[in-house]
Order: sequence, then structure tokens, then C-alpha cells
Amino acid sequence: MFITFEGVEGCGKSTIAKLIYNKLKENNFQVMLTREPGGVKIAEDIRKIILNKENVTLDDRSEALLFAASRRQHLVEKVWPALKRGEIVLCDRYIDSSLAYQGGGKHLGVEEILKVNLFATENTFPDLTLLFDIDPKLGLERISANKDREINRLDLESLSFYNTVRNTFLDLAKKYPERYYIIDASKSIDEVFNETYLVITNKLTNGNI
Amino acid sequence: MFITFEGVEGCGKSTIAKLIYNKLKENNFQVMLTREPGGVKIAEDIRKIILNKENVTLDDRSEALLFAASRRQHLVEKVWPALKRGEIVLCDRYIDSSLAYQGGGKHLGVEEILKVNLFATENTFPDLTLLFDIDPKLGLERISANKDREINRLDLESLSFYNTVRNTFLDLAKKYPERYYIIDASKSIDEVFNETYLVITNKLTNGNI
Repeated sequence: MFITFEGVEGCGKSTIAKLIYNKLKENNFQVMLTREPGGVKIAEDIRKIILNKENVTLDDRSEALLFAASRRQHLVEKVWPALKRGEIVLCDRYIDSSLAYQGGGKHLGVEEILKVNLFATENTFPDLTLLFDIDPKLGLERISANKDREINRLDLESLSFYNTVRNTFLDLAKKYPERYYIIDASKSIDEVFNETYLVITNKLTNGNI
Repeated sequence: MFITFEGVEGCGKSTIAKLIYNKLKENNFQVMLTREPGGVKIAEDIRKIILNKENVTLDDRSEALLFAASRRQHLVEKVWPALKRGEIVLCDRYIDSSLAYQGGGKHLGVEEILKVNLFATENTFPDLTLLFDIDPKLGLERISANKDREINRLDLESLSFYNTVRNTFLDLAKKYPERYYIIDASKSIDEVFNETYLVITNKLTNGNI
């Protein structure tokens, strides 16, 4: 079972993913929590190029291709082996982030980015995609409040960019209703966690969202 | 005018490209000779990942995506600006190498690799692609002669790979007759050079191959 956590910055998906991981472990599920590049050396090397603040000339399409390459390598070395062992894989961001950020936010086109990612993943879509939906303004306010978090090149994008990203995620939820579940991430962490856990255990027990 | 030099190892394309570059300069043409990653820092960084011998787990599709990312960056930072300045750009290998090596040789499929490269290059094809066609056995013998060694078992194993690469190049020449010109690279260097120079100057003066 392949489950992805998606949403704009500050939506809380990474925090919730960790809590879900702990709870599933506690309940004796075989589960792995990962995020690209996920400690996979080649994928890490690729991400270093993307995140290097000196690389100001990095073109948007080059970036999208690098994300796809990193995704592929993470899939091959980490996600597929875990799925093959029968584990639940929780992945913090996946294809949909590229569709929303590069396809939507950077206007490269969702269909264009999808083509590249279908090549990269050989059509490996998640069984369940949890969209932690929040007004980007609120999300960015949450991040600003958290001083421990280092701001990287991608955080420097404007609010209108994140609004487009959010809307693209919502469009994707409409396009892929069979795997998408939208959670109102403006609610309290307890409420968001409980709803998320319920959706996942439903999916695990009867296969439905 | 964007001109690419293609062919299997040992076909002599890099040697000919340098001679053509010198001759065009001598005749006062504005010309640039380049090859990916072409000294473009980000493209160089990407190529380091591909060529790093420690990266034994690098997947073929990841590699193809990295080549496309490197190509994009080289195009954006070096080739397009030169074409915009009105220069003749001679490029040692381009899209067709990916189609022949990854699409053909590594069996990822020419159409699949083409899709990724159309995204990377925004459909930027060369005006003229010179295919230096040679029996890969002869090409590998030329390389071996340089190194003073006989062809070994590994070379023979790779021979079938290079035969597929060669045949894919020949298929591409049939698919894109408007931009392809095949040169018999088994001939002497003088003959190959003279034919190449004639084709290029014809193309420059009347636009036809």
C-alpha cells in the first residue's frame, strides 16, 4: 500500500506523517516513512543541485527533470523494495507535488510534467493521496512562526505562486478521485491526525477511501 | 544554424567537428563548437552524477532524465544564446545520441526517450544532423588502436549494444530525412572532412542538404 502526503508549505503534512507512522507501528503494521530523496545517495546528489542557492541559472524544465530523476532513483532503491516486502509506504510528497509546483505554479503545464513523471515512475501512482489543504497564507504564517526551519530557495516563491499550487492540487483531486482524499488542514493537529488515521485504516481494511 | 555530429564510438565525429570548426573560422564564419555539458556549471554537476563510477545503482531511466536535464541547461545557457547571436553552432552529440543509446541500446524505447527530450528542448531540433556511420567493430578497433590493445571479451559484449545503437541512428536518419545526412565514416579522414564541409557549406548557402 503506497500512501502519499501532499500539500503546500506549512500544511502540516510532515508532522502528521510522522504521527501516523508511529501509530501504525504501535499497532504492529509493517510501515516505512520516507520522502524524496530519502537517504538514497544518487537521489541526494541530484537534490543538492536543485537546492543549491548558487544555482541561480537553473532552468525550470531542468529542475523538473532533476526532480523526476531523483524520484525515479528513490522509487527504484527504496519504495519499490518496501512495497515488494508488503510494507505500507508513507511518502512525504511525490508526483503530485511536481504536477502542482512545476506544472501549475511554474506554468510548465500539468500534462507536460505528467508525461515526464510517467516515464520516470513507469506509471506508479499511489493507492491513496492525502491532500492537506490549507490557505497558503496560513501555511506560510505557520512556517514563519517556526524559527528552527531553514528557508530554502523554493520557500522564496511568492504567495500567488502558492495559491496556484494549491488550486492545482485541488484540480488533481478532481481528476483522480479514486486515490485522492482532501483533509482540511486548518483544523487542529488532533483533528487532522484523527481524520487521517481513520482514512488510512479504512483504506487498509476495506480498500476504499 | 544548429548542426549536430552523431555516431558510435570511434566514428571520428569529434575529430571532424574540430577540423570543420577551424575551417569555418578560417573562412570568417561566426561559429561555436560545443558538446554537452559544454562548461555550463549546472550541466557539469549533473554529468558528474552520471559519470561517477561509484554510482553503480544509477537506473537507466534516471540516467536518461539526467542527460535530458543536462541537455536542457546546456541549451539554455550556451546553445540558444549563440544561435540568437546568429552563430553557427556545431554540437558534438545531442538528442539523437539519447534516442540511439538509451532508447535503442538500452531498450527504453525511442518514442519514450523522445517525449522526455521534447520536453527538455521544447522541440529544438538541429537544422542539420551529420551521422558518421561506421561498423561499430571498426569503430572499436580504431579506439583500441589508440590504446595499443586488442579487443577483449567486454568489447565484444558491447559490440551488440553498439550495433543496436548504430541501427537506431540509421532508423532515425530515415525518420528525419529533412535534417539527416549520412556520411560513410569508414573512409579516410580527408574524404570524410571534404564531404562534411561540402554538406555544411551547401546547407549554409542554399538551405538544402
